[in-house]
Amino acid sequence: MSTPTQNSPLVSTEQGLAEVLGFQYSGVRAGLKASGAPDVALVHNQGPEFSAASVFTTNRFAAAPVEWSREAVSDGRADAVVVNSGGANACTGPEGFAATHRTAEHVANLLGVSALDVVVCSTGLIGEQLPMEKLLPGLDHAVTELGAGGLADDAAARAIMTTDTVPKKASLAFDTDEGTVHVGGVAKGAGMLAPGLATMLVVLATDASLPSDVLNRSLHAATEQSFNRADSDGCMSTNDTVTLMASGASGVHPSETDFTDALTQVCVSLALQLISDAEGAQHDIHVTTKNAATEGQALEVSRAVARSNLFKCAIFGNDPNWGRILSEVGTTQAEFTPGAVNVSINGVEICRGGAIGDDRDLVDLAADRKVDVVIDLAAGDQSATIWTNDLTYDYVEENSAYSS
Amino acid sequence: MSTPTQNSPLVSTEQGLAEVLGFQYSGVRAGLKASGAPDVALVHNQGPEFSAASVFTTNRFAAAPVEWSREAVSDGRADAVVVNSGGANACTGPEGFAATHRTAEHVANLLGVSALDVVVCSTGLIGEQLPMEKLLPGLDHAVTELGAGGLADDAAARAIMTTDTVPKKASLAFDTDEGTVHVGGVAKGAGMLAPGLATMLVVLATDASLPSDVLNRSLHAATEQSFNRADSDGCMSTNDTVTLMASGASGVHPSETDFTDALTQVCVSLALQLISDAEGAQHDIHVTTKNAATEGQALEVSRAVARSNLFKCAIFGNDPNWGRILSEVGTTQAEFTPGAVNVSINGVEICRGGAIGDDRDLVDLAADRKVDVVIDLAAGDQSATIWTNDLTYDYVEENSAYSS
Repeated sequence: MSTPTQNSPLVSTEQGLAEVLGFQYSGVRAGLKASGAPDVALVHNQGPEFSAASVFTTNRFAAAPVEWSREAVSDGRADAVVVNSGGANACTGPEGFAATHRTAEHVANLLGVSALDVVVCSTGLIGEQLPMEKLLPGLDHAVTELGAGGLADDAAARAIMTTDTVPKKASLAFDTDEGTVHVGGVAKGAGMLAPGLATMLVVLATDASLPSDVLNRSLHAATEQSFNRADSDGCMSTNDTVTLMASGASGVHPSETDFTDALTQVCVSLALQLISDAEGAQHDIHVTTKNAATEGQALEVSRAVARSNLFKCAIFGNDPNWGRILSEVGTTQAEFTPGAVNVSINGVEICRGGAIGDDRDLVDLAADRKVDVVIDLAAGDQSATIWTNDLTYDYVEENSAYSS
Repeated sequence: MSTPTQNSPLVSTEQGLAEVLGFQYSGVRAGLKASGAPDVALVHNQGPEFSAASVFTTNRFAAAPVEWSREAVSDGRADAVVVNSGGANACTGPEGFAATHRTAEHVANLLGVSALDVVVCSTGLIGEQLPMEKLLPGLDHAVTELGAGGLADDAAARAIMTTDTVPKKASLAFDTDEGTVHVGGVAKGAGMLAPGLATMLVVLATDASLPSDVLNRSLHAATEQSFNRADSDGCMSTNDTVTLMASGASGVHPSETDFTDALTQVCVSLALQLISDAEGAQHDIHVTTKNAATEGQALEVSRAVARSNLFKCAIFGNDPNWGRILSEVGTTQAEFTPGAVNVSINGVEICRGGAIGDDRDLVDLAADRKVDVVIDLAAGDQSATIWTNDLTYDYVEENSAYSS
């Protein structure tokens, strides 16, 4: 299967949840962030159906909200997702788990639902307890602010941000014989983006009428082709959660294929927005490996290059240093003959047959934020793309000053 | 087996080859480097014995000199090692291999030995042909300059440097019933230091009388405990080579155990010197995992932490961010119970039972270049240390400007 690498023209990035029927949402200030920026978001599924599915980080130091939410969504139902920024509630022991439990119960009481149908997400610094005396009143406020439409949508998208510089929203509508289905979502994440898991906090909503087993399969398929292809710094978070809720409010029962396709487009848009806003990034880099023996080998090669600090520093310096690409390809187990590998950057084949190709001065990386690296393994017909970014002074600055 | 983490008081870092009997060496300027700094080194074993062993990068895009030297040393004999900086001769195709072949033949003719007994090492930018019109006269010059003692030793150590700021030398003498044995060497490397291979260019010499199969076993054992424990940026080079030559000039036949121990101490000293001089580093970080179920699991955990950009940026910012340590530990397959893991930094147990421990303000990273991270998995009795460094503005600067 080929990997979509462009935003579909059908995907809107202006709105996330705003057009999806059957949901209310809000974003408010609880005072968890020293900056005073919004830090609590709530998304409430008003039904008539309440199917849900989630994917979570595979990190073994999963945060308290991940432990809770894994259990909460295991029956295929969720009535609400509550997200706080300003504190990850990870590595906080029993006190941290109690804080998550109390958060879910508080929201459940206010909404008149079961605590075990409330998914909880937290993001921020690891290893600090949440200030519940601020969070609980914030939850009260978030419930009173619940509403639908563009303003509430934007407030929710902003309240989940940490080092993000812009809110991330994506939505798509598609028609069926029965009527129109809407799929949309909001996402946060600007560092610690790595693969093999759900790589950030994402809340997705649809008004389709679909059972939770379909949502689960669709969400896993969409995640594999989107968030799992984004790798900003190879670091896997303790808190990553992607949750999809379906209200059934459209009354439409799309085919699983059509729904998965739409959901994938929304997730790809959100993943590309995350990588574009990665900490300190000055280039968006797409590393495509083509003519690989298997898709897995194409992914292995693209990921090895996307994780190379030397390569990522070179791109920051506008240096089309293909030697640093080959030296990473050479660490993989993928099938290839070194003397048959070609590499192009932005269309210029600067490495041919594992050796020197066209003039590297033909590549002008300073001219464009986008960098397209294509590695041709000449070993088969499979391809895959990993999205990453360059390694910059600003990345070092943001991440050396984050908790100090 | 425990990993030595300190320089032995017996190891001298003032001299590399200078006290080893039976060798001559030199370092000269051939004009390969734009800076005009020395760029060709030669180490000549004058016998009476010529045993040798090497370990090489496992990168599949091995440079031409690696392909050549692998063959040259396969019979257990080497008469000389010639090293050029100012060009890696990697990914240079048949023309690059011909340049290495010609280099070996030229040196062999001048020394009156077989070309297949000349090990060739190159370091510098990947993907450019070596200027043979400069290199060949440089080789002539290197042969005329051959000599023994401190000045020639220092010249050889300096001529192999690339972005290194200081030459790296280490040597050790030990006594046996038959007399004294000397072991010493010179090394270069300040980036692209990664494990699973010989991680840099190193030339080692001894006057012990030992057959090549003993040298081979000793060198592999010493490398495993030294260069393979150093990981500056997770990037594996195309050119890494460690070569050990034995002249037998002392007439002493040490036990394999004694020799391996001495060789390991010399290699540990060189590895620590390499990490201390890693590009832009402001902290030397020792990541020790203890009480692991196996040494391999201890290594896996230490390496995961040592490769985390987020952790390395935090250390640069003098931030004892143990959350970024646990989040890396959580990505490994090592045996542990999350609630039983402790982490200390410079002796302060800031994470206890997988959660918040002693006050992080007790850790003053600004006060010292050395950072000791100890992760206690509470899952066994094995331990291992990986040596790394922080991720700094200067690392990004050096590596974004290297070939531009």
